Amino acid sequence: MTAMKAPDLADVEAARQRIRNHVHQTPVMHSRLLDELTGSTARFKCEHLQRVGAFKARGAFNAVLGLDDAVAAKGVATHSSGNHGAALALAASVRGIAAHVVMPANTPAAKRAAVAAYGGHIVACEPTLAAREQALEAVLAETGAHPVHPYHDPRIIAGQGTLALELLEQEPDLEVVAVPVGGGGLLSGVATVIKSLRPSIEVIGVEPAGADDAFRSFGFGELQGQPNPVTIADGLRGALGQLNFEIIRQRVDTIVTVTDEEIVEAMQLLWTRLKQVVEPSGAVSFAALLAHPERFAGRRAGVILSGGNVDLDSLPW
Amino acid sequence: MTAMKAPDLADVEAARQRIRNHVHQTPVMHSRLLDELTGSTARFKCEHLQRVGAFKARGAFNAVLGLDDAVAAKGVATHSSGNHGAALALAASVRGIAAHVVMPANTPAAKRAAVAAYGGHIVACEPTLAAREQALEAVLAETGAHPVHPYHDPRIIAGQGTLALELLEQEPDLEVVAVPVGGGGLLSGVATVIKSLRPSIEVIGVEPAGADDAFRSFGFGELQGQPNPVTIADGLRGALGQLNFEIIRQRVDTIVTVTDEEIVEAMQLLWTRLKQVVEPSGAVSFAALLAHPERFAGRRAGVILSGGNVDLDSLPW
Repeated sequence: MTAMKAPDLADVEAARQRIRNHVHQTPVMHSRLLDELTGSTARFKCEHLQRVGAFKARGAFNAVLGLDDAVAAKGVATHSSGNHGAALALAASVRGIAAHVVMPANTPAAKRAAVAAYGGHIVACEPTLAAREQALEAVLAETGAHPVHPYHDPRIIAGQGTLALELLEQEPDLEVVAVPVGGGGLLSGVATVIKSLRPSIEVIGVEPAGADDAFRSFGFGELQGQPNPVTIADGLRGALGQLNFEIIRQRVDTIVTVTDEEIVEAMQLLWTRLKQVVEPSGAVSFAALLAHPERFAGRRAGVILSGGNVDLDSLPW
Repeated sequence: MTAMKAPDLADVEAARQRIRNHVHQTPVMHSRLLDELTGSTARFKCEHLQRVGAFKARGAFNAVLGLDDAVAAKGVATHSSGNHGAALALAASVRGIAAHVVMPANTPAAKRAAVAAYGGHIVACEPTLAAREQALEAVLAETGAHPVHPYHDPRIIAGQGTLALELLEQEPDLEVVAVPVGGGGLLSGVATVIKSLRPSIEVIGVEPAGADDAFRSFGFGELQGQPNPVTIADGLRGALGQLNFEIIRQRVDTIVTVTDEEIVEAMQLLWTRLKQVVEPSGAVSFAALLAHPERFAGRRAGVILSGGNVDLDSLPW
């Protein structure tokens, strides 16, 4: 097992080298109309155009490609609300090893199909964190596979952080960055890079109000649970990890929440104005610009659109 | 009035200079998954990311910026199913002149809103070509505005052709190009450029089966009408123009049709795989790769995604 040490900038730079032939450098987009609407200068980092349609490809490739051959031989396993599972299945298929993916039964069909398309072996479970963890333990006991947690893992955090290295090169003049937070893998990775290289940039985590454990944990200074998340942002229902929380507490400036209504409005604007298909979890960052204009107006804001995997047959409008 | 002479490459190059500070050079995207699905190497020219969300900005800017001051002073006018109207309104607002836009009553709300947002003056009419032309005549008589037809105009054709100049620079190795055809402004402009610079590239027009006048005209060698178009591709319901037909007959290799079902399938794939919001009229080119694989499989294909303006509340699935 990898020691649970917070990754630093060198770990993220090593991850970038490790995964460079397997992930895209995603583009940055902008829109005059959306800038007029928010009063800010928004630069959208398009991780919905990443492989598997989400930033999760970065962390998964970093974890899988870094394994010793003997460990890799028995395959990898995880529990995931979707995008991490697809990413792990893809990375495993590239390395030629098995991927076992525990998925809650209420996962959108598109995300299940993606895992299957990359050759991942899906293990269904009830939609609770306890059920996921139990099902994963059974898989590990049976197969000897190596577990790759969706976010509570320094290799994953370092992998996700690579998008911030790109973003700082693409947009050198940012003043603030809005980052979705669920389990905290993305936010802890991005904050690690930004506070190492450009500490004056404000890092703001954005969480759905119906799954606000990161917001509460950050405020209390102590990790809080998330027993019954209620939000359309299905990728952000997971509870903040311990390691992620420790990093976030040190390296993130603040966390704000947005309502599901604000998330849907943000999605619609991204679809109709930017012409980009972004999933609810991927749109929370832009929702923060709409819901908390006092934090972004007049500023040059990096807005991380973290994923674009949706079921077109069950859109939230 | 501008003489109805077919534009040549020099006209398109002049248009590019004229409009360069006002339109985007749109990106080209690709997708491994879509290539596996079609068996071709598709390069998507993203005109849905153009200003006003469609290629129409190119022709409209070329026409409006090329007017003499005395003519421009009385404003411009057109009838349009939507994107040309929005584009003309934008170009007119940039030049500081009025735009009068005759729009059929069944135009999608998003397209009406776009015209209004750019300060265009909307004149409603019945959804027939005769009603549009009658309403336009009345506007011209009343205002003295200069008419800018959506496609039957060499300035418009030259403007639309500028996207092909870009595409050939961005993708020098194309073997075939798929281009939506309604009134024929885009197809005649693209064909003019390609047959001037790279005549070995096959130029294929793609038309909805429910509005197939270009297909029939091309086959008969004589301009055919389109009395009752029935297709979800609302931007392609207009009948082919005489000038457009003459150019297309000389410079286009063939025209194929696609069904509305194939258009919807193409849209869904573009939305879920490429993560791009493309309207039905903009997706017909990709629908041709699905519907006519014998023409595209194994080839490097330029696929023009011509627009992305949709009502999210009335999606065709």
